[in-house]
Amino acid sequence: MALELIGEGWTILILREAFFGSRRFEDFQKHLGIARNILTTRLNKLCEKGILERTPIKEGAKRHEYRLTPMGRDLHTILIALNQWGDRWLQNTEGAPIKFIERTTGEEIMDVAVLSKDGREIKPRDLTLIPGPGATDETIERLRLLSDNPEK
Amino acid sequence: MALELIGEGWTILILREAFFGSRRFEDFQKHLGIARNILTTRLNKLCEKGILERTPIKEGAKRHEYRLTPMGRDLHTILIALNQWGDRWLQNTEGAPIKFIERTTGEEIMDVAVLSKDGREIKPRDLTLIPGPGATDETIERLRLLSDNPEK
Repeated sequence: MALELIGEGWTILILREAFFGSRRFEDFQKHLGIARNILTTRLNKLCEKGILERTPIKEGAKRHEYRLTPMGRDLHTILIALNQWGDRWLQNTEGAPIKFIERTTGEEIMDVAVLSKDGREIKPRDLTLIPGPGATDETIERLRLLSDNPEK
Repeated sequence: MALELIGEGWTILILREAFFGSRRFEDFQKHLGIARNILTTRLNKLCEKGILERTPIKEGAKRHEYRLTPMGRDLHTILIALNQWGDRWLQNTEGAPIKFIERTTGEEIMDVAVLSKDGREIKPRDLTLIPGPGATDETIERLRLLSDNPEK
């Protein structure tokens, strides 16, 4: 499940490093200050799950590096959203440490938000959750209880 | 830092439960199957960080419940984005277990994405990161190294 995959101790910090351009074991180790055995376990897990891939540094090389797969790169929305949430809520009197800029226009991006298909912002209170085609009986029951509780 | 706050073992699953309407200790415990001492620690941490708040069940009651603060509710974008990422990439031949619907229109929401201020989708390769007003020397140096590496 997505939440279990991402919400694991060092995992999200390793992913951020990968987006920052770290590829080699030593780069991750240096920037994160993480114990080598924990880093090895986490990198292997991310490869196994298809988020990173291990490739030789160059053709035929013995040393390898870790690169984001398309599935891993698709997490950029979540990392940027987390960063923007931190900028909004965690006290930093100086302002945001990092700005995300569109290369071609030089403009800052929009805050990542939940939008309708025609682009209106949708607040949590305006959302309702319904079972999709892959819902288990447990999910169906949870969502039924949820819709019985109008206060939520 | 936002990533450290959210990316901690049970934390994200507890938050999802809160969005699903769990408020009482017993609700979280039942739905997550988590050890009581770990749940206590995590709930206290989330209160301390301002994401949940402990309030009496009713005025003057001794028992209390845990509710999302505005800062906590503002995490809904990230939880929905994670859910949609899971729907895109984790094998589930049946389809999405949950659909997010706008209450007033009955329409499914847009996939959460990184957009320009005028609503165009921005891919990771079209983004560049620059130091903001709150950047530390370390952040400035990391971003400089990043921009020196055109392959990223």
